[in-house]
Amino acid sequence: MRAVVCHQGDLSVEDVPVPAPGPGQLLLDVVRCGICGSDLHARRHADELADVATELGYPTVMRPSHRIVLGHEILGRVASYGPDTRRRWKPGTLVVALPVTRTGGEVRMVGFDTAAPGGLAEQTVVQEVFTFPVPDGTPVDKAAFTEPLAVAWHAVRRGSVGRNRPAVVVGCGPIGLAVILMLKASGVRQVVASDLSPGRRALARACGADVVIDPRVQDPFTAYDQKGPVRSLPDYLGFGLDAMGTLRRVPLLPWERMMRAADALGATPSGPVVFECVGVPGMIEQLVTAAPLHSRVVVVGVCMQQDSFRPAMALHKEIDLRFVFGYDPAEFAHVLTLIAEGKVDPTPLHTGTVGLDGVADAFAALGDPEKHAKVLVDPAGSATL
Amino acid sequence: MRAVVCHQGDLSVEDVPVPAPGPGQLLLDVVRCGICGSDLHARRHADELADVATELGYPTVMRPSHRIVLGHEILGRVASYGPDTRRRWKPGTLVVALPVTRTGGEVRMVGFDTAAPGGLAEQTVVQEVFTFPVPDGTPVDKAAFTEPLAVAWHAVRRGSVGRNRPAVVVGCGPIGLAVILMLKASGVRQVVASDLSPGRRALARACGADVVIDPRVQDPFTAYDQKGPVRSLPDYLGFGLDAMGTLRRVPLLPWERMMRAADALGATPSGPVVFECVGVPGMIEQLVTAAPLHSRVVVVGVCMQQDSFRPAMALHKEIDLRFVFGYDPAEFAHVLTLIAEGKVDPTPLHTGTVGLDGVADAFAALGDPEKHAKVLVDPAGSATL
Repeated sequence: MRAVVCHQGDLSVEDVPVPAPGPGQLLLDVVRCGICGSDLHARRHADELADVATELGYPTVMRPSHRIVLGHEILGRVASYGPDTRRRWKPGTLVVALPVTRTGGEVRMVGFDTAAPGGLAEQTVVQEVFTFPVPDGTPVDKAAFTEPLAVAWHAVRRGSVGRNRPAVVVGCGPIGLAVILMLKASGVRQVVASDLSPGRRALARACGADVVIDPRVQDPFTAYDQKGPVRSLPDYLGFGLDAMGTLRRVPLLPWERMMRAADALGATPSGPVVFECVGVPGMIEQLVTAAPLHSRVVVVGVCMQQDSFRPAMALHKEIDLRFVFGYDPAEFAHVLTLIAEGKVDPTPLHTGTVGLDGVADAFAALGDPEKHAKVLVDPAGSATL
Repeated sequence: MRAVVCHQGDLSVEDVPVPAPGPGQLLLDVVRCGICGSDLHARRHADELADVATELGYPTVMRPSHRIVLGHEILGRVASYGPDTRRRWKPGTLVVALPVTRTGGEVRMVGFDTAAPGGLAEQTVVQEVFTFPVPDGTPVDKAAFTEPLAVAWHAVRRGSVGRNRPAVVVGCGPIGLAVILMLKASGVRQVVASDLSPGRRALARACGADVVIDPRVQDPFTAYDQKGPVRSLPDYLGFGLDAMGTLRRVPLLPWERMMRAADALGATPSGPVVFECVGVPGMIEQLVTAAPLHSRVVVVGVCMQQDSFRPAMALHKEIDLRFVFGYDPAEFAHVLTLIAEGKVDPTPLHTGTVGLDGVADAFAALGDPEKHAKVLVDPAGSATL
């Protein structure tokens, strides 16, 4: 079969053997496979990724010297089954799959491991228990977004935004845009999006962001309405003083009642939920410094380098940093349902489709934020960008 | 009156004017004032503290060149009232006070500001609304711990431990020990304490820690019992594979039911709640690397320097970093009640009492973890260590 092979940072289309499904696995004819920011990163910085993965206990993760078939955003039709499978879906059934297998007794990340070649190929192997049939009538170009939207949905859930708390999305690459889509799909009223690129800002608007700003021109933390904005610790303490002054007209209250009263007076403000979707060193320090008191920062952007920040600033503002990674099978299945039912529409993210021969150019084009957000690969097609 | 004045890092007992209570304020005769780690830090590193405080919007915070009366863990008897006060407590009433005032129209941190001299003095000024009368019969040496225990109580609340989730306290200085006390007072079943110092480990045991370890000898994250320990991401994903294999014997479940089933099977494990009570650079990286998947790290230790860590490690493990600072008036009042009712006993922390003339030696002695945890100052006394 034909596959895009990554070796020493080069991408080339090669004829490789069809992978054989092992126990509990099945072979898919790939219909679409998205190109992810992690693929672009892994191509150039495989060693950084592998160092962390090795420390985390993965048996083998790609090194620059390996010959890797990338691709983990997989949509395909069932071709054949390996041993010990339940054969739940008929051959030809369209499915999406979590990119995790158990191969050779070890857990593998599909598309980042020599033993688990990915979806930038005519065929690929996935684990039967991690496949989900695509409901009839769902366009393939939408269903192909299940994986990246599941990443975003998991981040939104981990952020526990609530409808009335403002959300600020910093960085409108494919993951930032997916976070905007899922925030709006879950009913969050005020979503502020921030990006340096005019192209990406236009896409953020198309994905439903309520306010879209250029961070060189406007502070994202002034771009939403909030009852009783309390931006500094002295403000907060002063507010506490005033609140207590009011409360002390009555005899000493039990502490639970005092808490509620203080809440009602705005003396325990909560900041916005911020989604860090850039993933370069310095972003955490920048957000800890810029964000209001009691902000929750959900770190979705993958920064592979050592990073530095000032814990004292985070302490005084009581910032939460919630790091997120992946999703669980239930979140994955839920996102597929949302897409199938039309409750979330990833179409604005989809800026191009290429055949296998167009993949190398697509990787290059994805480096420019003005040009593309998500490029899907159709291994049976021959389109180029 | 006599007061301990800090100037260019030197502490000396001087005769200074009695501070005058402003609007809404009252004058206390100080009965006890605890020496806090922040006092030790501020004495030597006032500029670091002031740089952050200035950025946060405080009008004036101590610089090495200022003449500052330190002390913010204040217990005293009501001496007289300033203007615009409600005079709720009779003169002589024993009260504890939050160390925050509004002086000269600005919010001040008592004990760190030239305009708000602290409690290492015969008398000090506090805000009436932030005073709480000490219930009759409460020993003064216990009530004097209201402020540091409120810091710990706030950290425990922000950590949302729950009784059955294990808690790991890293660093058993006064704040780590106070966190242990409050964890046990709130019913947490398994509290692991870790410290390099044998003296501090003995105090951790006295404060109620269930397991006390030397981190050079044992990994704190192996020192508790946990149902279905899942320590690495491949383990977790493998667990997911197995769980889904089991679940897939029934037709595709709605996602909520799947979530519950996965929970029951242990496929969404939660790590321990870790309390970082050391506050030196490198602790966050060390904990992010050592802690199991899905750990929540509550950062209580105040690290004033720039710090660095690997976000990629935090991402893959989905670590939460919750930074905490201070407490609110309701938490402060609640802790006083717990102390008065005997539900928490800070006696193990209390390793010495000195008069004002003993303060400089006490600051020196507190640098050695084997000697002391919390030293209280009794301005009417003349004891030395």
